[in-house]
Amino acid sequence: MPVEMGLRRIIISEIHEQQVIVLKELEGDRSFSIQIGIFEATSIDRKIKKIPSPRPLTHDLLCQTITSLGGELQEIQINELKDKTYFATLKIRQDGKFVKIDCRPSDAIALAVTMSVPIFVYEEVLEQISEDI
Amino acid sequence: MPVEMGLRRIIISEIHEQQVIVLKELEGDRSFSIQIGIFEATSIDRKIKKIPSPRPLTHDLLCQTITSLGGELQEIQINELKDKTYFATLKIRQDGKFVKIDCRPSDAIALAVTMSVPIFVYEEVLEQISEDI
Repeated sequence: MPVEMGLRRIIISEIHEQQVIVLKELEGDRSFSIQIGIFEATSIDRKIKKIPSPRPLTHDLLCQTITSLGGELQEIQINELKDKTYFATLKIRQDGKFVKIDCRPSDAIALAVTMSVPIFVYEEVLEQISEDI
Repeated sequence: MPVEMGLRRIIISEIHEQQVIVLKELEGDRSFSIQIGIFEATSIDRKIKKIPSPRPLTHDLLCQTITSLGGELQEIQINELKDKTYFATLKIRQDGKFVKIDCRPSDAIALAVTMSVPIFVYEEVLEQISEDI
Protein backbone atom coordinates (compact mmCIF):
# COMPACT_ATOMS: atom_id res chain seq x y z
CA MET A 1 0.00 0.00 0.00
CA PRO A 2 1.42 3.40 -0.88
CA VAL A 3 1.59 5.85 2.03
CA GLU A 4 0.72 9.50 1.50
CA MET A 5 3.53 11.82 2.58
CA GLY A 6 4.03 15.56 2.66
CA LEU A 7 7.01 17.76 2.03
CA ARG A 8 8.25 18.65 5.52
CA ARG A 9 11.46 20.58 4.85
CA ILE A 10 13.85 21.75 2.17
CA ILE A 11 17.40 22.37 3.28
CA ILE A 12 19.26 24.48 0.76
CA SER A 13 22.99 24.84 1.30
CA GLU A 14 25.14 27.05 -0.86
CA ILE A 15 28.24 25.17 0.24
CA HIS A 16 27.19 21.68 -0.84
CA GLU A 17 26.14 20.66 -4.31
CA GLN A 18 23.46 18.27 -3.04
CA GLN A 19 20.43 19.71 -1.28
CA VAL A 20 18.04 17.83 0.98
CA ILE A 21 14.26 17.48 1.08
CA VAL A 22 12.47 15.73 3.93
CA LEU A 23 9.20 13.88 3.41
CA LYS A 24 6.96 12.96 6.35
CA GLU A 25 4.00 10.60 6.57
CA LEU A 26 0.71 12.56 6.72
CA GLU A 27 -0.94 10.13 9.14
CA GLY A 28 2.07 8.85 11.04
CA ASP A 29 5.56 9.74 12.17
CA ARG A 30 7.82 8.14 9.63
CA SER A 31 10.00 10.51 7.64
CA PHE A 32 13.03 10.32 5.40
CA SER A 33 15.29 12.61 3.41
CA ILE A 34 16.31 12.61 -0.25
CA GLN A 35 19.33 14.37 -1.70
CA ILE A 36 18.50 16.42 -4.78
CA GLY A 37 20.25 18.95 -7.02
CA ILE A 38 20.29 22.69 -6.39
CA PHE A 39 18.17 23.48 -9.47
CA GLU A 40 15.36 21.13 -8.41
CA ALA A 41 15.57 22.28 -4.77
CA THR A 42 15.33 25.93 -5.81
CA SER A 43 12.42 25.12 -8.10
CA ILE A 44 10.51 23.35 -5.27
CA ASP A 45 11.34 26.18 -2.86
CA ARG A 46 9.99 28.82 -5.29
CA LYS A 47 6.77 26.84 -5.67
CA ILE A 48 6.24 26.52 -1.92
CA LYS A 49 6.94 30.21 -1.35
CA LYS A 50 4.73 31.03 -4.36
CA ILE A 51 7.47 33.22 -5.87
CA PRO A 52 6.13 34.25 -9.28
CA SER A 53 8.24 34.09 -12.43
CA PRO A 54 7.65 36.38 -15.45
CA ARG A 55 8.21 33.44 -17.80
CA PRO A 56 7.45 29.71 -17.33
CA LEU A 57 10.33 27.90 -15.65
CA THR A 58 11.16 24.33 -16.70
CA HIS A 59 8.79 22.65 -14.22
CA ASP A 60 6.01 25.10 -15.18
CA LEU A 61 6.60 24.09 -18.80
CA LEU A 62 6.35 20.43 -17.81
CA CYS A 63 2.98 21.10 -16.11
CA GLN A 64 1.77 23.10 -19.12
CA THR A 65 2.87 20.31 -21.49
CA ILE A 66 0.92 17.67 -19.53
CA THR A 67 -2.21 19.86 -19.57
CA SER A 68 -1.87 20.94 -23.23
CA LEU A 69 -1.60 17.31 -24.34
CA GLY A 70 -4.82 16.43 -22.52
CA GLY A 71 -3.23 14.89 -19.45
CA GLU A 72 -3.99 15.47 -15.80
CA LEU A 73 -1.39 14.67 -13.15
CA GLN A 74 -3.14 12.53 -10.53
CA GLU A 75 -0.34 11.80 -8.10
CA ILE A 76 3.35 11.10 -7.91
CA GLN A 77 4.80 7.93 -6.45
CA ILE A 78 8.21 7.14 -5.00
CA ASN A 79 8.19 3.45 -5.69
CA GLU A 80 11.69 2.08 -5.52
CA LEU A 81 14.98 2.45 -3.69
CA LYS A 82 17.89 0.77 -5.40
CA ASP A 83 21.61 1.30 -4.77
CA LYS A 84 20.82 4.39 -2.68
CA THR A 85 18.83 5.91 -5.59
CA TYR A 86 15.13 6.67 -5.25
CA PHE A 87 12.91 6.09 -8.28
CA ALA A 88 9.66 7.97 -8.87
CA THR A 89 6.72 7.83 -11.25
CA LEU A 90 4.28 10.44 -12.54
CA LYS A 91 0.76 9.03 -12.73
CA ILE A 92 -1.12 10.96 -15.40
CA ARG A 93 -4.72 10.41 -16.49
CA GLN A 94 -5.35 10.90 -20.21
CA ASP A 95 -8.57 9.92 -22.03
CA GLY A 96 -9.68 7.79 -19.08
CA LYS A 97 -6.44 5.79 -19.02
CA PHE A 98 -3.38 6.09 -16.82
CA VAL A 99 0.04 6.88 -18.23
CA LYS A 100 3.01 6.29 -15.93
CA ILE A 101 6.30 8.07 -16.53
CA ASP A 102 9.57 7.19 -14.80
CA CYS A 103 11.44 10.15 -13.27
CA ARG A 104 13.60 11.36 -10.41
CA PRO A 105 11.84 12.16 -7.09
CA SER A 106 13.03 15.78 -7.31
CA ASP A 107 11.19 16.43 -10.59
CA ALA A 108 8.16 14.48 -9.36
CA ILE A 109 7.97 16.50 -6.12
CA ALA A 110 8.45 19.80 -8.00
CA LEU A 111 5.42 18.83 -10.14
CA ALA A 112 3.38 17.62 -7.14
CA VAL A 113 3.95 20.94 -5.37
CA THR A 114 3.16 22.97 -8.51
CA MET A 115 0.00 21.05 -9.39
CA SER A 116 -1.10 20.33 -5.80
CA VAL A 117 -1.32 16.56 -6.17
CA PRO A 118 -0.54 13.92 -3.51
CA ILE A 119 2.90 12.40 -2.96
CA PHE A 120 2.77 8.63 -2.31
CA VAL A 121 5.66 6.48 -1.12
CA TYR A 122 5.51 2.71 -1.40
CA GLU A 123 5.49 0.82 1.89
CA GLU A 124 8.38 -1.34 0.61
CA VAL A 125 10.52 1.78 0.19
CA LEU A 126 9.73 2.95 3.75
CA GLU A 127 10.55 -0.53 5.10
CA GLN A 128 13.82 -0.58 3.20
CA ILE A 129 14.79 2.83 4.65
CA SER A 130 14.07 1.65 8.21
CA GLU A 131 16.19 -1.47 7.63
CA ASP A 132 19.08 0.64 6.33
CA ILE A 133 19.16 2.86 9.45
CA MET B 1 8.80 33.40 -42.85
CA PRO B 2 10.61 31.60 -40.05
CA VAL B 3 14.33 31.10 -40.66
CA GLU B 4 16.00 27.86 -39.66
CA MET B 5 18.93 28.40 -37.33
CA GLY B 6 21.45 26.16 -35.62
CA LEU B 7 23.10 26.28 -32.24
CA ARG B 8 26.55 27.72 -32.95
CA ARG B 9 28.06 28.15 -29.49
CA ILE B 10 27.39 27.82 -25.78
CA ILE B 11 29.50 30.03 -23.55
CA ILE B 12 29.42 28.78 -19.98
CA SER B 13 30.96 31.07 -17.39
CA GLU B 14 31.27 30.07 -13.77
CA ILE B 15 31.69 33.71 -12.76
CA HIS B 16 28.45 35.07 -14.24
CA GLU B 17 24.98 33.80 -13.45
CA GLN B 18 23.75 34.30 -17.01
CA GLN B 19 25.19 32.07 -19.72
CA VAL B 20 25.12 32.70 -23.46
CA ILE B 21 24.03 30.64 -26.44
CA VAL B 22 24.60 31.77 -30.00
CA LEU B 23 22.23 30.82 -32.82
CA LYS B 24 23.29 31.16 -36.47
CA GLU B 25 21.26 31.01 -39.65
CA LEU B 26 21.77 27.67 -41.45
CA GLU B 27 21.63 29.20 -44.94
CA GLY B 28 22.98 32.66 -44.22
CA ASP B 29 25.25 34.64 -41.96
CA ARG B 30 22.94 36.21 -39.43
CA SER B 31 23.48 35.21 -35.84
CA PHE B 32 22.46 36.41 -32.40
CA SER B 33 22.97 35.51 -28.78
CA ILE B 34 20.51 34.78 -25.98
CA GLN B 35 21.29 34.91 -22.28
CA ILE B 36 20.09 31.84 -20.41
CA GLY B 37 20.43 30.36 -16.93
CA ILE B 38 23.24 28.04 -15.86
CA PHE B 39 20.93 25.03 -15.43
CA GLU B 40 19.54 25.29 -18.97
CA ALA B 41 23.01 26.00 -20.42
CA THR B 42 24.46 22.95 -18.67
CA SER B 43 21.53 20.83 -19.85
CA ILE B 44 22.04 21.89 -23.50
CA ASP B 45 25.80 21.37 -23.19
CA ARG B 46 25.30 17.81 -21.85
CA LYS B 47 23.00 17.01 -24.77
CA ILE B 48 25.45 18.28 -27.37
CA LYS B 49 28.34 16.42 -25.80
CA LYS B 50 26.09 13.34 -25.43
CA ILE B 51 27.02 12.98 -21.75
CA PRO B 52 24.79 10.19 -20.46
CA SER B 53 22.89 10.42 -17.19
CA PRO B 54 21.93 7.37 -15.11
CA ARG B 55 18.47 8.87 -14.46
CA PRO B 56 16.31 11.14 -16.66
CA LEU B 57 17.14 14.81 -16.15
CA THR B 58 14.34 17.41 -16.25
CA HIS B 59 14.55 18.01 -20.02
CA ASP B 60 14.67 14.23 -20.64
CA LEU B 61 11.51 13.94 -18.55
CA LEU B 62 9.90 16.67 -20.64
CA CYS B 63 10.74 14.75 -23.85
CA GLN B 64 9.46 11.51 -22.31
CA THR B 65 6.24 13.23 -21.21
CA ILE B 66 5.56 14.56 -24.73
CA THR B 67 6.10 11.09 -26.20
CA SER B 68 4.16 9.21 -23.50
CA LEU B 69 1.12 11.47 -24.03
CA GLY B 70 1.12 10.74 -27.77
CA GLY B 71 2.87 13.91 -28.87
CA GLU B 72 5.72 14.40 -31.27
CA LEU B 73 7.84 17.55 -31.11
CA GLN B 74 8.00 18.90 -34.68
CA GLU B 75 10.04 22.05 -34.23
CA ILE B 76 10.67 24.91 -31.85
CA GLN B 77 10.14 28.54 -32.77
CA ILE B 78 11.56 31.73 -31.34
CA ASN B 79 8.75 34.01 -32.33
CA GLU B 80 8.89 37.21 -30.34
CA LEU B 81 11.32 39.68 -28.78
CA LYS B 82 9.72 42.01 -26.29
CA ASP B 83 11.44 44.20 -23.68
CA LYS B 84 14.72 42.33 -24.30
CA THR B 85 13.02 38.97 -23.59
CA TYR B 86 12.81 36.28 -26.24
CA PHE B 87 9.65 34.16 -26.39
CA ALA B 88 9.57 30.64 -27.78
CA THR B 89 7.00 28.02 -28.69
CA LEU B 90 7.07 24.23 -28.81
CA LYS B 91 5.17 22.94 -31.84
CA ILE B 92 3.92 19.44 -31.01
CA ARG B 93 1.89 17.16 -33.28
CA GLN B 94 -0.73 15.06 -31.50
CA ASP B 95 -3.48 13.06 -33.23
CA GLY B 96 -2.92 14.93 -36.50
CA LYS B 97 -3.29 18.35 -34.85
CA PHE B 98 -0.73 20.86 -33.70
CA VAL B 99 -0.43 21.92 -30.09
CA LYS B 100 1.65 25.04 -29.40
CA ILE B 101 3.14 25.64 -25.96
CA ASP B 102 4.68 28.92 -24.83
CA CYS B 103 8.13 28.61 -23.20
CA ARG B 104 11.53 30.19 -22.75
CA PRO B 105 14.05 29.77 -25.63
CA SER B 106 16.46 27.95 -23.28
CA ASP B 107 13.97 25.13 -22.57
CA ALA B 108 12.91 25.04 -26.23
CA ILE B 109 16.52 24.73 -27.44
CA ALA B 110 17.30 22.06 -24.82
CA LEU B 111 14.37 20.04 -26.22
CA ALA B 112 15.32 20.72 -29.85
CA VAL B 113 18.85 19.45 -29.20
CA THR B 114 17.58 16.39 -27.27
CA MET B 115 14.95 15.41 -29.83
CA SER B 116 16.89 16.55 -32.93
CA VAL B 117 14.21 18.88 -34.28
CA PRO B 118 14.72 22.16 -36.17
CA ILE B 119 15.04 25.56 -34.49
CA PHE B 120 13.14 28.31 -36.32
CA VAL B 121 13.41 32.03 -35.65
CA TYR B 122 10.81 34.44 -37.00
CA GLU B 123 12.07 36.95 -39.54
CA GLU B 124 10.49 39.77 -37.47
CA VAL B 125 12.66 38.79 -34.51
CA LEU B 126 15.82 38.82 -36.66
CA GLU B 127 14.86 42.22 -38.10
CA GLN B 128 14.25 43.59 -34.63
CA ILE B 129 17.69 42.39 -33.47
CA SER B 130 19.41 44.05 -36.44
CA GLU B 131 17.56 47.32 -35.67
CA ASP B 132 18.65 47.19 -32.04
CA ILE B 133 22.35 46.84 -32.91
